[in-house]
Amino acid sequence: MDVELISIGDEIISGHTVDTNSAYTAPKLAEIGLSVTYKTAVGDDLKRMEEVIKRALVRTDIVIATGGLGPTDDDITKRVICKVFKRKLIFHEEVLDDLKKRFEARGFKMPSINQNQALLPQGATFLPNKTGSAVGILISENNKIFVSMPGVPREMKVMLTEELIPYLESKITKAAIKVIKLRTTGIFESALAEKITPHIKIPDNIKFAYLPAYHGVDLRIISTGNNENEATDSAEKLAIQIRELVGKYIYTEGNDTLEAVVGKLLTERNEKLAVAESCTAGLLAGQIVANPSASKYFDRGVVTYSNESKIELLGVPPEILEKYGAVSTETAKIMATNIREKAKVDYGVSIAGIAGPDGGTYEKPVGTVFIAIATANGVKSKKYLLTNDREINRLRSVYAALGLLRKTILGLD
Amino acid sequence: MDVELISIGDEIISGHTVDTNSAYTAPKLAEIGLSVTYKTAVGDDLKRMEEVIKRALVRTDIVIATGGLGPTDDDITKRVICKVFKRKLIFHEEVLDDLKKRFEARGFKMPSINQNQALLPQGATFLPNKTGSAVGILISENNKIFVSMPGVPREMKVMLTEELIPYLESKITKAAIKVIKLRTTGIFESALAEKITPHIKIPDNIKFAYLPAYHGVDLRIISTGNNENEATDSAEKLAIQIRELVGKYIYTEGNDTLEAVVGKLLTERNEKLAVAESCTAGLLAGQIVANPSASKYFDRGVVTYSNESKIELLGVPPEILEKYGAVSTETAKIMATNIREKAKVDYGVSIAGIAGPDGGTYEKPVGTVFIAIATANGVKSKKYLLTNDREINRLRSVYAALGLLRKTILGLD
Repeated sequence: MDVELISIGDEIISGHTVDTNSAYTAPKLAEIGLSVTYKTAVGDDLKRMEEVIKRALVRTDIVIATGGLGPTDDDITKRVICKVFKRKLIFHEEVLDDLKKRFEARGFKMPSINQNQALLPQGATFLPNKTGSAVGILISENNKIFVSMPGVPREMKVMLTEELIPYLESKITKAAIKVIKLRTTGIFESALAEKITPHIKIPDNIKFAYLPAYHGVDLRIISTGNNENEATDSAEKLAIQIRELVGKYIYTEGNDTLEAVVGKLLTERNEKLAVAESCTAGLLAGQIVANPSASKYFDRGVVTYSNESKIELLGVPPEILEKYGAVSTETAKIMATNIREKAKVDYGVSIAGIAGPDGGTYEKPVGTVFIAIATANGVKSKKYLLTNDREINRLRSVYAALGLLRKTILGLD
Repeated sequence: MDVELISIGDEIISGHTVDTNSAYTAPKLAEIGLSVTYKTAVGDDLKRMEEVIKRALVRTDIVIATGGLGPTDDDITKRVICKVFKRKLIFHEEVLDDLKKRFEARGFKMPSINQNQALLPQGATFLPNKTGSAVGILISENNKIFVSMPGVPREMKVMLTEELIPYLESKITKAAIKVIKLRTTGIFESALAEKITPHIKIPDNIKFAYLPAYHGVDLRIISTGNNENEATDSAEKLAIQIRELVGKYIYTEGNDTLEAVVGKLLTERNEKLAVAESCTAGLLAGQIVANPSASKYFDRGVVTYSNESKIELLGVPPEILEKYGAVSTETAKIMATNIREKAKVDYGVSIAGIAGPDGGTYEKPVGTVFIAIATANGVKSKKYLLTNDREINRLRSVYAALGLLRKTILGLD
């Protein structure tokens, strides 16, 4: 079945906001066998929204709109829905009660403008919003399904995965589908493709995709078949081939994050970790603690941005900073060794680099990053040459450090 | 005049690629008075592409498509253009010669597949491509302008700014436009709207929008007029009214981030900053250092996740942790006070909270966060009750701390 995604909001068409919702939604739908054929964005304009939704209902089976459900005057999606489906806005007491309770639980009085959030189209199904005030609206009519969800990415994501996907799965007759996701880190998309493409043949019933991101490249296999066994067999056959070719870069099969995989390894071994950062300035610690069970294995971090802090917090000798520089193998190694000793943990990880845009030299250009890992067996460090972009360099450094830590824990390399 | 942007390519609708082209293009067009009213994405599918382009030519004046101009078989935009405009593909010797010369200038022989790039629709205007092989195609017919550009962001951007924008500027009579963005923090969209909406009347020539994000809510005014003065006057008049109503939440006019505004204040005062974090675990330090000039005012951070680290790195007395808990006003105050003293800086900022999903109690539910700021005049702390979501709680805490720091530096409250 075909899907059209519609993003609503002046901020989307004016370019103020990059629309990430649809890039998140399309792969989730693909996993249950639904393919997005059109994506449309339109501003907060009654007439244009109406035209776009009507058109979408003609050319696709399922229409999923996001945005314009807030309580303020410029949020007019509900009015458009009433127009398109000839419904009335009705006050839904139970929705308001639920919202009031959630504000009360936080010790707040609900701002009265949120009463608007209980005015909803007659005869629709509502999708609960666990992280915000606007419920989702679902209307099933004439063999078409129309859905309206909040535009705030966090709210949309939870509603999509916890409410809408299960609903759609129950409604559609889907072909048997098997999805396998192999997550890699430490290798670029083009290098992966060179190692894989010449050696495999993708069967017609399989869609194979490289999905690059800062944390690494995910390899996704979507296999369809007449029954579950058929779909699973051919997906697994391809996965085995891929593992043979690039297995050492694969850190998990499924959706676990790299920090969760590292966390699991440390927990299993009952080992602990501390970090010392300069250019990433806390982003590595922050990413480690994104995993809710981090307190089991993460002890502490120091962000030693000034030279004084490197000396005072980590005992880096001033003469080392003088001779080799704050961004050097030598400094990174001492940072990792000393944070490990001070925290009395099993692993000390350090990152020292030149994120840019300034601070680069001929010998150490912007994008030069040293990552060191200290264990009971000593310390090793690795040098990276990343990009010219400050933000990219900081993000890539975080994932490079996590990848290196995983390999160290596993004794790989 | 209205514009529709069309992105072509399977990678866009399947979600593999986030479409950043349109977010780049829309503001550039706004600057010459053209407003994007629709954005559409469609896969590499002849029929659907034809339908989308025809529809766009009906509902807008200028249609700008990107993607599908490459030399390989799945790049079919030129075929669609010929269908829509009833043209033939003609071999353009001069385009091929130019392309050959550019390959030669770099010491390469042109790959023969690039001969396809000289097959172009009859009677079109071509926009040179300085950074790639596909020229842009422009057709002006029946008072409509249709443009097709490459989808590679780097090529598209150069062609847009150096070729298309000057062309469009020469063709259109533009309306004068003034955009004002007021950035707020520390207040929700609904509360802002309650303070603003009842007290202002938005003139017909102005579009006013609330743009919420984790860092706060941006208020955007777009005003049009017959000339620049007219547009500017009415935008500024509204901005003054809004400042009177909610001025204390506005941290900047324009595009500066909250961390950049705080950084500017500290730099002006020649003051320095250090931070101590538990639940945010480095994200505050990481956000501060997102500003490239942070080394001028940011000294260090500590991520005291375990109780031992709070005691060892910050000297929090064990009996305070025992009596009040690691997440408490008392602990947060000591963390802020002691990181300030240890780093010998002007401001010490601390965050201690229960991010969730576990760790909440009846008295301190998930989402309870204490933020403290220590200065030469002493230490103050503030309690927040945020959400049930770990990620949101950590992000909101970071911006709440930055907002509180800004107010402290300015002596507000």
